[in-house]
Amino acid sequence: MNAVTHVSPGLWRRPGDRAADYTDRDYWTDVARTAERGGFDAVFFADVRGIYDVFDGAREPAIRRAVQTPSNDPRFLIPAMAEATDDLGFAVTRSTTYNQPYELAREFSTLDHLTDGRVAFNIVTSYLDSAARNLGVGQRLDHDDRYDRADEFMDVCYALWEESWDDDAVVRDPDTDTYTNPEGVHTIDHDGEWFTVEGPHGCEPSPQRTPFLYQAGASDRGREFAAGNAEAVFCSYPTRAGVRDYVEDMRERAESHGRDPDAVGFYPGMVTIVGETEELAEAKYDHYRDIIDVEAVLALLSGFMDMDLSALDPDQRVEHIETEAMQGAVNAFTKADPDRDWTVAEMARFAGLGSTSPVVVGTPEQVADELEAWYRELPIAGFNVKEVARPDSIEDFVSFVVPELRERGLLDASEGDTLRERVTDGGPRLPNDHPARR
Amino acid sequence: MNAVTHVSPGLWRRPGDRAADYTDRDYWTDVARTAERGGFDAVFFADVRGIYDVFDGAREPAIRRAVQTPSNDPRFLIPAMAEATDDLGFAVTRSTTYNQPYELAREFSTLDHLTDGRVAFNIVTSYLDSAARNLGVGQRLDHDDRYDRADEFMDVCYALWEESWDDDAVVRDPDTDTYTNPEGVHTIDHDGEWFTVEGPHGCEPSPQRTPFLYQAGASDRGREFAAGNAEAVFCSYPTRAGVRDYVEDMRERAESHGRDPDAVGFYPGMVTIVGETEELAEAKYDHYRDIIDVEAVLALLSGFMDMDLSALDPDQRVEHIETEAMQGAVNAFTKADPDRDWTVAEMARFAGLGSTSPVVVGTPEQVADELEAWYRELPIAGFNVKEVARPDSIEDFVSFVVPELRERGLLDASEGDTLRERVTDGGPRLPNDHPARR
Repeated sequence: MNAVTHVSPGLWRRPGDRAADYTDRDYWTDVARTAERGGFDAVFFADVRGIYDVFDGAREPAIRRAVQTPSNDPRFLIPAMAEATDDLGFAVTRSTTYNQPYELAREFSTLDHLTDGRVAFNIVTSYLDSAARNLGVGQRLDHDDRYDRADEFMDVCYALWEESWDDDAVVRDPDTDTYTNPEGVHTIDHDGEWFTVEGPHGCEPSPQRTPFLYQAGASDRGREFAAGNAEAVFCSYPTRAGVRDYVEDMRERAESHGRDPDAVGFYPGMVTIVGETEELAEAKYDHYRDIIDVEAVLALLSGFMDMDLSALDPDQRVEHIETEAMQGAVNAFTKADPDRDWTVAEMARFAGLGSTSPVVVGTPEQVADELEAWYRELPIAGFNVKEVARPDSIEDFVSFVVPELRERGLLDASEGDTLRERVTDGGPRLPNDHPARR
Repeated sequence: MNAVTHVSPGLWRRPGDRAADYTDRDYWTDVARTAERGGFDAVFFADVRGIYDVFDGAREPAIRRAVQTPSNDPRFLIPAMAEATDDLGFAVTRSTTYNQPYELAREFSTLDHLTDGRVAFNIVTSYLDSAARNLGVGQRLDHDDRYDRADEFMDVCYALWEESWDDDAVVRDPDTDTYTNPEGVHTIDHDGEWFTVEGPHGCEPSPQRTPFLYQAGASDRGREFAAGNAEAVFCSYPTRAGVRDYVEDMRERAESHGRDPDAVGFYPGMVTIVGETEELAEAKYDHYRDIIDVEAVLALLSGFMDMDLSALDPDQRVEHIETEAMQGAVNAFTKADPDRDWTVAEMARFAGLGSTSPVVVGTPEQVADELEAWYRELPIAGFNVKEVARPDSIEDFVSFVVPELRERGLLDASEGDTLRERVTDGGPRLPNDHPARR
């Protein structure tokens, strides 16, 4: 996130931590150069509107502990980071709930032009009620309405990106005084439940037209949406079995949308904490775990789940939590190690590092072993390497783990001009079996 | 504009013209470096939503001749151009009619952080009906409603930028686990006619807080709005008398808003066409004038004025135009030289180069003489040097005119870290007499 904290509140307090540099352009161009050096396909930006105010019914805990507030707009990092790199891709989160598709289509067309086709759209539907109270919507839409709106939103975007301008519309012919052949530019005349958009699109076709599409759907409706739209899917499960179940379900759903399931790439989240020796890695892990801000994690989780967790005592055993809903909430994390005797604080420290993703701690070899085992065993395309400490998470990964992966032949240089070509087997455009093309 | 054409359609057809490079990041970083080398305070981006379709009731002429279509979003040029420069400012146009103030406030806070206080907001209310048909508004708001909305829009932005976070709210104190002191962060609880925004602002204060504010108000209501908000005002009149009348009126209006009129800077538009010799400059002028696309200019003016000019015959004398409204429309341009016997085509070629601003043609000395005469005679702070040909307009100005101005001591290096400090006598923040501060 373009913020002090994404999901690891408290780590900004480490001596030397650069989390508070998030307002500086130089911090982000450093990140971009490091990611490119490490052979990452893309950096990925989460984003959120509103302030976490479910915990204790107040926004003060989130503000005090920098729980995703303050946060700046991640879109504007992309052109600066593109200027500092040649091939790195940029995935940015935008909400279909608080935007207009005509505007959003223009934003991504512009970014795709400016980055020569290196941009991706992470589609979200937003969940914080406090965002609705700032954006004139009055009250948050309920979950299914948000997905109904998202479906129509993407229909409009696809029509603008894929159908409004023919490939040969722009001719730039001085002799006939024709920059664009008007017969090649079409209105879309969308008149739906949520949006009325006449078109045509105001932008000429960009290298990818539709930006490369990321999504992370967890609920049934969210999975359906991802299966019908995403080209790359993030997921976050603490065990390989969890990832396998998810991927199998999603592949079936993609097929039911008429898509080749092999054309969808799955990227489980993974936190890596690596050191030159096992002892150094463990010491780093202990340090991070100690400095995680337990109350801030509970404030974060309260917002994620829309459930006030302020009544939980950090020292109590999770098995003694009385309400079933809260048991279910913490169980999402403790099931990573169900035999352990968790306290609420331990659960929070765990969630604050990995969320529901595994935390792999060890030497470069040990971390590479674990990544390799997941990669060989599961039908996945790669990993979403999650950031915990700034800039250690990415710098340690690139300095320690990447050389090991390269030595094992597990990290080939990606080929292709656009992000879509570098990540998939296809060309710069959406594949023909994607619902947007049919 | 982040487009092929702003107001000089047809010039993209020149051999070697770079207008069609507007999609390339490198084109814009070149512009940024040239502008910085030339001592410009800022580059200024116009922007428009929708397609010009008033001329002949059709969008085809504007599409064929690239009349502000295609156009990309100018906001995303700023971080890349900031990366290529140290001091240059960036003024970007955003509409109060098609945005939400909470979102826009976040955009500008982000850009102000990322550019270290080099960003400016050119406030517009939008005029194309076709934009409304794409943005779910149904029909364009009428002129006064647009300004009512703009007033309230700015009230919300000012509250978010100036009042929501105290100067000492962000403490970043690891010992007390306090990134931000919540007592220093305030909701704004705006509940108005157009917007409901609870706040608080999601961004910590940026170097300028409120971006430096540009405006160009021409109508009575537009002038009132500019007098109450703008720190720098653009105007476009063909004669010094026109500029003088405008500035005097605006200074009175600023005073009636409780502002020091000297704190508002006025920047008349000026087109300069310069060559090593008078003959070269004249030849360049003739070349530009010949290649201007007359029908495209009429399509552009039709959109500006919301009046279909397609019935005009390019060869007819303007004095023979029958309808009064069209007479008035062309008179805005021909009054630059009322004694001349204008045809419609001549008027269009004139408007396509300078719009309603003067076109100064000559050697570096001659152009500097004219700028100096305007500057010494009028209560203005500088000029809006308008672009006609890409990249000639800016490159010729910086190569030829800037050295002459520097030699005359008319172009001192600006001092200060932020754009506001470099352009005004004050500090990085809005002056205390600005309505937003009172």
